[in-house]
Parts: sequence; structure tokens; C-alpha cells
Amino acid sequence: MRRFSTFALMHPEFIAYIKRQANLTDDEIKLVCSKGVERTIPRKQLLLQQGEICRHKVFVSKGCFSTFRTKEDGVKHIIDFSAEDSWIVDPESYNHGTPTAYSIEALEESVIIQWTKNDFNDLFAQIPQIKAYSEKLVSEKLLTIRQRLYSAISSTAEEKYDEFIKTYPAVFARVPLHMVASYLGVSRETLSRIRQAQVRR
Amino acid sequence: MRRFSTFALMHPEFIAYIKRQANLTDDEIKLVCSKGVERTIPRKQLLLQQGEICRHKVFVSKGCFSTFRTKEDGVKHIIDFSAEDSWIVDPESYNHGTPTAYSIEALEESVIIQWTKNDFNDLFAQIPQIKAYSEKLVSEKLLTIRQRLYSAISSTAEEKYDEFIKTYPAVFARVPLHMVASYLGVSRETLSRIRQAQVRR
Repeated sequence: MRRFSTFALMHPEFIAYIKRQANLTDDEIKLVCSKGVERTIPRKQLLLQQGEICRHKVFVSKGCFSTFRTKEDGVKHIIDFSAEDSWIVDPESYNHGTPTAYSIEALEESVIIQWTKNDFNDLFAQIPQIKAYSEKLVSEKLLTIRQRLYSAISSTAEEKYDEFIKTYPAVFARVPLHMVASYLGVSRETLSRIRQAQVRR
Repeated sequence: MRRFSTFALMHPEFIAYIKRQANLTDDEIKLVCSKGVERTIPRKQLLLQQGEICRHKVFVSKGCFSTFRTKEDGVKHIIDFSAEDSWIVDPESYNHGTPTAYSIEALEESVIIQWTKNDFNDLFAQIPQIKAYSEKLVSEKLLTIRQRLYSAISSTAEEKYDEFIKTYPAVFARVPLHMVASYLGVSRETLSRIRQAQVRR
């Protein structure tokens, strides 16, 4: 655990983010930060592996992660990308202490801040704003996934691709095409064809 | 608003459900029930229409609803079915007071109990267990949609169909095939072909 002054110096982005988003006082921010532990995750390293139990809430301070699941046939399916200023948690595994069905991988060298479940629950009890903020995050996540589900069942491959570029321009620029195809649930060949057609226009 | 005694007589299922799920005392259940209003929704009638604001939390006491969105080309896409003992709300519209992108239709004559947002917020303030229960529902919904999204991007049409029958046997028996196709995001022709092949086996 780091002392606050060091932490604040190292994570001005997190301090600015949490202050803005959760409307916390300086003392509350100090308390949140005092429980956070920083880790650097090398590219291609797993933050969480299918079968493990998710024991932390994670904030992405720098870098980008994919959350994926490997089907019985060995094919990886990416259900989420998480870049700077987003939170990563496997809600089912974290809430129930059960093995996760998903893996989370760093797509580039990344810096995270993580909190144990115990520490985060203490923060919930001590700072009602953090609880409210966390509920807001869950409810926003629900809307995002619902929109993505609607898109998955209603859109053509080209519409899905266009929506992805529009919604996640920062992620799009950093992620190889086969991962975008996996995320959209379309084949790599289909995606290449769409891109080539768009370039020709 | 009905008197509790009448309500309890008419909705023994709801009383049993909420007692079991939210772990409420009899006084708390009375309070919850005193704010609920019963409505019968005829088959094919809309409970909520795209463009309206969702102003109620709704419990399905009897019947079945579909939540769908109509794309610009006029095609309906069903993102959810809700049968007995489930809650219906458009979270985005309800939370933010914005027009909903979805419509909700009764697939058969249905009976609901509804609460206004004000009344439900009062219940939250007065009964902490209801707040905890509601958070649990949101978090379960998140898991369900996440699973459905994974299935949408990773499964074949036949796998999606089999999963649907397994997960929602009660809904499956009551819903016409073209709605199942819409829900799964596969064409009606594909679904008919899968069913015929399964029958032949």
C-alpha cells in the first residue's frame, strides 16, 4: 500500500477522474487511494484467467485490456475492451466468489490500480458517495451491454463495425483487426471485405 | 390504490414472491403492496411505446411481455421476454426520464402490478431490504444480458436456439416461432430449418 502523497503524484489522472465522477471530498479521495495498490501488467499478460476467482476491483490507469471467453472449440470471443478511465471486474465471480468464465488480458503494457473486495466494501460503508457511484456504474454498464446486445441481434456486420468505430475510437486505433472481428462476432474475412469496400469508396 | 386485504387476496403469488426474494417483514410487505396498482393488459396492447417515458416499475403477475425495438427498416427486434414473477422497466428511460427506444407488448392477456417512480423511491428510503433487493436484481440482469451477449457473438444459430429452450422453457412454449427468431437474431428460415432437422433426428 502506498502513502497518499506518493499515490497522488503517480496517479493524477485517477484523482481527477474519481473527483469528477464520484463527487468526493479530498479526505474521501485520500481514503480511497490509501487502499489502492498499483500494478504494471506487461503486454499479453493475463490479469484474470478463466477458472480463477475475481478478487479485485480494478481501475485502468493506462493501457488497454480485453475480456474474452474461450469456447470449447478453442476460439476466443471478446466481450469487452477496457481502456483508460474504466473499471474492470467480473461481476459474477466477484459477487459470488465463484470461478470466472472469462479471462482478462493486457493488450499493451498497462498500469492498473486494484482494491480487494474487503477494502472496497469498507469504502462502501464509509463513503456513501462511492456506493452511489458504483451503482451508477453498474446501471450504465447494463445500458451499454443492452445496446451492444441490440446491435448484435439487429445490425449487419458493416453497421456493427461502423458503430464500434464511432463508439470506441480510442480502442479501435489500438486493437488488431482480428480482435475487432471477435468482439463484433463476425468473421475476419467479412471484416476485411467491409474495410476494403469502405477504403475503395 | 387498493386496500391491503383486497390486494393480498388478489395477489397471493406476488406476496409469496416478494417475501421469499426480498426477505421482508409483513409490515414491509403491506407497505409495498399499498403503493402498487393492478392493471390488466389485453393481448397485443403496448405497456410502453418507443418514444414514451417509462414512469413505472412493473411486476408481471400473470402473462408474458416482449420488449422490442423497431429498426429504421421497420423490422422488430426482441431483446427480452418477461413472464410471471419478473420485473419490467426500461432502465435508461426510468432513471433519466428520457424517451425510451423500446416498446413493451403483452403477448397474451396479462396482469401487472405497477408502482410510480416516486412511490418506489419512497419504498427505497423506508425499506433498506427493498433497495438491496433491487440492486441484486440489477446485478443479476447484468449477468443475464452478458451471457446473452456472449451467446450472440459466439454461438451458432442452433446453439442459440437450444440455449433458449433450456433457459426459458416456460416462455418457449408460449411464444410464436418468428418471435423466437427475432429474439435470437437469426432469420425465420434458418430457425425453421433447425427445427425440422431436430424433429427428423
